[in-house]
Parts: sequence; structure tokens; C-alpha cells
Amino acid sequence: MSFLNDNYLKLRAGYLFPEIARRVNTFCETHPQAAKRVIRCGIGDVTEPLPPACIQALHNGVDDMARRETFHGYGPEQGYEFLRRAIAQGDYRDRGLEVADDEVFVSDGSKCDCGNILDIFGSENQIAVMDPVYPVYVDTNVMAGHTGPANEIGAFEGLIYLPCTPANGFVPEIPEEKADIIYLCYPNNPTGATATREQLTDWVAYARLHQSVILYDAAYEAYISDPAIPRSIFEIPGARECAIEFRSFSKNAGFTGLRCAFTVVPKSLAALARNGERRPLHPLWQRRMATKFNGVSYPVQRAAEAVYTPAGKAQVAALISHYMENARILREACAAISLDVTGGVNAPYIWVNTPPGISSWDMFDLMLQDANIVVTPGAGFGSNGEGFFRISAFNSRENASEAAKRIVALNF
Amino acid sequence: MSFLNDNYLKLRAGYLFPEIARRVNTFCETHPQAAKRVIRCGIGDVTEPLPPACIQALHNGVDDMARRETFHGYGPEQGYEFLRRAIAQGDYRDRGLEVADDEVFVSDGSKCDCGNILDIFGSENQIAVMDPVYPVYVDTNVMAGHTGPANEIGAFEGLIYLPCTPANGFVPEIPEEKADIIYLCYPNNPTGATATREQLTDWVAYARLHQSVILYDAAYEAYISDPAIPRSIFEIPGARECAIEFRSFSKNAGFTGLRCAFTVVPKSLAALARNGERRPLHPLWQRRMATKFNGVSYPVQRAAEAVYTPAGKAQVAALISHYMENARILREACAAISLDVTGGVNAPYIWVNTPPGISSWDMFDLMLQDANIVVTPGAGFGSNGEGFFRISAFNSRENASEAAKRIVALNF
Repeated sequence: MSFLNDNYLKLRAGYLFPEIARRVNTFCETHPQAAKRVIRCGIGDVTEPLPPACIQALHNGVDDMARRETFHGYGPEQGYEFLRRAIAQGDYRDRGLEVADDEVFVSDGSKCDCGNILDIFGSENQIAVMDPVYPVYVDTNVMAGHTGPANEIGAFEGLIYLPCTPANGFVPEIPEEKADIIYLCYPNNPTGATATREQLTDWVAYARLHQSVILYDAAYEAYISDPAIPRSIFEIPGARECAIEFRSFSKNAGFTGLRCAFTVVPKSLAALARNGERRPLHPLWQRRMATKFNGVSYPVQRAAEAVYTPAGKAQVAALISHYMENARILREACAAISLDVTGGVNAPYIWVNTPPGISSWDMFDLMLQDANIVVTPGAGFGSNGEGFFRISAFNSRENASEAAKRIVALNF
Repeated sequence: MSFLNDNYLKLRAGYLFPEIARRVNTFCETHPQAAKRVIRCGIGDVTEPLPPACIQALHNGVDDMARRETFHGYGPEQGYEFLRRAIAQGDYRDRGLEVADDEVFVSDGSKCDCGNILDIFGSENQIAVMDPVYPVYVDTNVMAGHTGPANEIGAFEGLIYLPCTPANGFVPEIPEEKADIIYLCYPNNPTGATATREQLTDWVAYARLHQSVILYDAAYEAYISDPAIPRSIFEIPGARECAIEFRSFSKNAGFTGLRCAFTVVPKSLAALARNGERRPLHPLWQRRMATKFNGVSYPVQRAAEAVYTPAGKAQVAALISHYMENARILREACAAISLDVTGGVNAPYIWVNTPPGISSWDMFDLMLQDANIVVTPGAGFGSNGEGFFRISAFNSRENASEAAKRIVALNF
């Protein structure tokens, strides 16, 4: 008699993005004319082609696979040396941060890493997440049995929710209670908020005091233009003793369809075993990757390496500028009709207050019907997302400008 | 205070392939002349270049990523429709087997799938594995907390080991005790054994009687040339009610470095929830993939699709012939010096008895020192692997022939 994992049955049926897709489909079927005008600013997926340096590296990598002499079979599960070195050097050591090549674990996506990282932690940990929050952090904890059931507003028993509100600038206060594992995401998805050096320093102090681990999701770090804002948790002294960092090639070089990301697990990071000993987590993640993963596609790793070449860097910078100009255009459109806007400055997401009395799902429907624009309702990210919606700057310039025009024409 | 997953501490430090690599490195450093002659028949990694049809599809897929009009961002987490359809049609429906497109889940590797599948099962399940066994099945169960500690011969408390021996032709008998989840792998890694239709029919009857689930690893099905031997568990009536099948493009089209595989979860397969209800597993795996995975690289999915074209099929058939001719050459060499050989007929692995009184690790050292050939010691796959070693047929013809010559020259 086989038993299923009952924790899955606690998950809410209506996951955010499928529900959005359902509503958009229904609208398009019932409004065939308007359907042609629909502009998607919902899901955070890039739209622009890959940088030419990456395209060239992919073609070269494919050609390597066509000849016995240069063929690549199984690669190291943790990533090829050439890529781990390029990352550690380009993203960390060149910026004065201590990260060894073998502290970088190359993977096929940050979503996978954020979920899989729970494999190496015990079930006793008290988990804290921001609210609103990227749903993957919550759902993977539910699946792993780290929570009770959800209440009527969709909050799961046993998780600590850290409210992100206009009052705290969408950067939560340090909690009173003790959390063992804390998910932080800056620049934030969905709010577009960033954390200052002081705020991150407080989190590192908290984590070190409680011997907690910060899971730091920096997937959007490339969008930070303000030099005062940390791009890595490892810019904070002491973070190597309390943090794991997730990064991705999805949002800088546009690899959402190509699949490459990485996780940095410092060798100085430890956690408690049941016998009371503190042991390093690096060997556990190493073992996890060796046993349950088989490395990233070789041509894709070559493409990721190309991101660190001078040409690659310039092309990525141009992509970021493109999306950030979209963000400016969309922000200003929202501001022009007196909506309260945050984000969209050091982040590709714009977080907008709904007009008084309009819920975030009502606003979703309204934007779809009146402006034929798909946004993401804030409530889908947690109870503190109610009263907000997210606009993604990932679009062509043409679509972003057209969306801005339609927003300005809205009348609340 | 963060807690680590204590189950990881039960894993044996000396994992098989790293230990082999260590011994080979030591030998090469101390024998620089012999090092140049070393032929690797250890790890089961392909050596021949990708089929030209796949190379062309990869280049085309990369070109798609270079233009906004054909760019692919996030794909469906379960795989593109074009690939799910090609698989369901080409591997199943064209052979008269009922598998729907959306029962196929495309992934980045069978190793990942075999490990990740445990996510959707409860911890109450009694697990059965073959012995010798592909170590990933065991290690992922250890990590998930489904076992106690290992004993002195490396067997984990709480697992049911099904002995595969010369007496049963390396196909285990149906166990007396009740297993809830049973891993079966045919053609087998490491023994190269295959199961007959009758044997698989008995397993399906057992699984249906006990409402158990068979996890059927068919990664090597392409090597079956005997039409009487089933290539899929779904050839057995009733298997859609009790089995999940894992398949890979690694060993047929040589994708070990490209990364693409798939899992078939029939919608008619169910397991027990704690409330006593039997519920389908398909939605759980669908949810698992949507939440912890983000799809396979788009150009790689295009390459996998090309495997099903007429050109792709012919090129894959040529690759299989190449490796199977190696298998024949290596089998005959072992037989020529009166070693007992099995496998290597409908499988790329040859399973060889060590000469009397020689342990499998001693045989490993002896083959390395006397013939400069790397094999895999059977004991690394479990206690019933002691007294055997595995030779992989994945090699160039030149290497296979040279290895065969050296084996024939050995003197026991």
C-alpha cells in the first residue's frame, strides 16, 4: 500500500500564475477583438533575445558536441571549473568579496535551488518568510512538511510571516521571535524594494546571534544601479557565517528559457546536528547535488561563461538598461494618474497601490478589461499584498510604451 | 539555531565513483608511463558525438533564441507540447501503448527524476531495491529519512534488499514481505540483466495486489534487441495502475552532457492519503514540477524532438550498434580467459565474475595495474555485487578493441 505525501494536499488549488492564465484565457475567448491588444506585464519573463556573446558561445558549445575530440559527456554535478571560476571571480572576487570557486554550485535555475536547498536542513527549523513573498519559498516548505494547514487568508500555520508594508518601506523589521531559516529577497520580488547596507547588517547580526541561516535570493541584483545598495549578502561582514546566496542568469542575460543559475554556500557556514555538533553545510549541499542532480547542459554553461566576457558584460548592461527604461516609463504612467508607486528603480518590478476600495484581484480584472493589460494581483503573493498589484518591466519598448499610454488613459 | 538534515550523516563517506577516481588518480601519479595507456570502462558515460540531427536541431534552437520573434523564455515546467507529444507518440503509442502527452514529464535527467520522485510519497512507505543497485535509489531514500543507519556491509536498516545473483539470473524473486515502493531497473545497471514479460507480469500482479508502486527505470531500453523482452513496463497489462517509468536521452542519443530525460506518470496511478482515500499521483508530480523545476533548456528540447525524426532514429540506431559491438568484443574477451560473463547482450554493461578468491576491489586494482583498464567493482553497488565487476561498453571502437586485447592477455 503506497502512501502519498499528505503535505501536498495542504497546498492551495489555485496557484497564482495558473489562475491568472485562466482569467486571461476566459477574457480572450469572450473578447476576441480585445484579445489581440492584450499586453502581458504579469509574469516576470524576459522578452529580448539572448546577448550575441551567449549565442556565439552556444553555437561553439554545440559544435564541441559534434566531434569526438571535443565531446562533453557527464560534467561535474556542481558545474564546470571554467564557469565556477568565472562566477566567483566576476561576481565576487573582482568586487572584493571572498568566494572560492568551489563554493559556487551551478544549477539549472534559482527556483530549483530555492526549493532543493531545504533537502539539507532538518524538519525542526522555524522558517520565516517575507509577506508578500515569492510563492515558491512557502510552497516548498509546505511540501516538505514544515507547516500546518493554511488558514482562510492562505497563511500557513507554523511559518513566521514578516509583513512588508508601506510603513516599513517593504523591508520587514527584525522579528521578536527566533527564526532558524530566513528567506530574504532583494531586489524584492514582488515589491521591487531594496535593502540598505544597514538593514542587511542588522539581519546578519540577528542570524549570527541566533545561529540562523539567511537564504538570500539575489536573482535581480543586476538591476541595482545605486552603488550604496548591496548587490550580495556577502558584502556584509559576517555573512559568510550565516548566509547562502542564490543568483541566476535568467534576469540579467535573459536565460529564462536556457536555464542556468548558481548558489553560493560558504564553507564557513554551519548548522546543528542532532548530537549537538555544529557541522558545515557545504559538504551536505555538495552531496545533495552529486546524488540528485547531474549538472547543467554543457553548451548552456559555455553561454553563462560568455556573460563574463567584455562583450557579454556590455550586452547584459544594454539589456538591463532596456528593461529599466521600460520600468521608468511604466512608473511614470502610474504616477501620472496618482497611483502610489514603489519599486522599478533598482528592480524590474513596479509595485502599485490599488485605488481606494479596489481589491487586487478586482484591479487585475479591471486592468485586463479596461486597458487589456495583464498585471499580477498583489494578494497572490500573500495577505500583505492585498491592495497592490505588480507590473513587470520585462517587455519590448513598444509594449511598455503602449501599456503606459493605456494606463494614463485610465480613469478611477 | 538552524538544524541540518541528520539523515545525510548516515551516508557512507566513500561514494563509489569518487573512490574509483581517487584510486585511478593515485595510480596515474605513481605510474606516469602506464597512465597514458589507461582505458576507462568504469563510469557509464557515452563517448561518441551527438547525432547530426540533434546537432542541427540545437543550432536551430539557438538561432531561435537570437531573435525576438522566435525567442523562448520560460517554457512549460513539464516540457513543451512538441516534445511531450513526440515522446508519447514515438516511444509509446506507435508501439501500441496507451500514454497521453500530458502523462509525460520532461526533465533534465533520470538521476534527478529518480531522486525527486520521493517528494510526492509519504515517509511511511516500505522501500524495496535490487541488490546490486544503482546507488542513487538508496542514497536518496537515506537522505529522505526512509532508512536507519547502515550496517558493516553498507546495507541500510529499513530497506528491503532484493538479491540479484547468478542463481536467479540477476532477476530477483518476488519478496515474501510487503513493499510499498519497488525500484526495478531493466536493462539493469549494473548487471546488464533483462526481465522477461512473465517476470514483469508477476511484479505488476504483486504491485496491484498490495497497491504498491513500481518505479521502473528504463534508461537503457534502447539496448534491447530481442523483440520478446519488454522495453517498457507499460507493455504489461495493469501497469498503468501501479507503475511510474523513467527514461532518458542520455544513453540512446548520447545526451549525458546535454541533459534531457522524462518520466511517465499515468493518470490512473493512485496512492493512499492519511484519511484513507486513494488519490491520483499525477497532480502531485505536476505540482512538484511546477513548484521546484522550471523546465528543460529550449534548444535541448528541440534536440530531443529530433531524436524522433527518421534521420534521428537512424543515427541513434547506429550509436546503439556501435556500443553493442563494443559489448560483444569485450564479452568475448572475458569469455576467452574463462571468466563468467553475463549482460552485454541487450544492455551496454557486462557483469563479470572475479576469479576465485579475488574480491571486486582487488579485481579493480588488478585490472588497473596489470591491464591499465578502469572497471567498476561490483561491491560498490551492494553486498551482492561482491565477487563481480562491471565493464562498460561506452567507448570508442579503438579503446574497446585495445581493452579486449589486454583482457585476453591477462593471466589468472
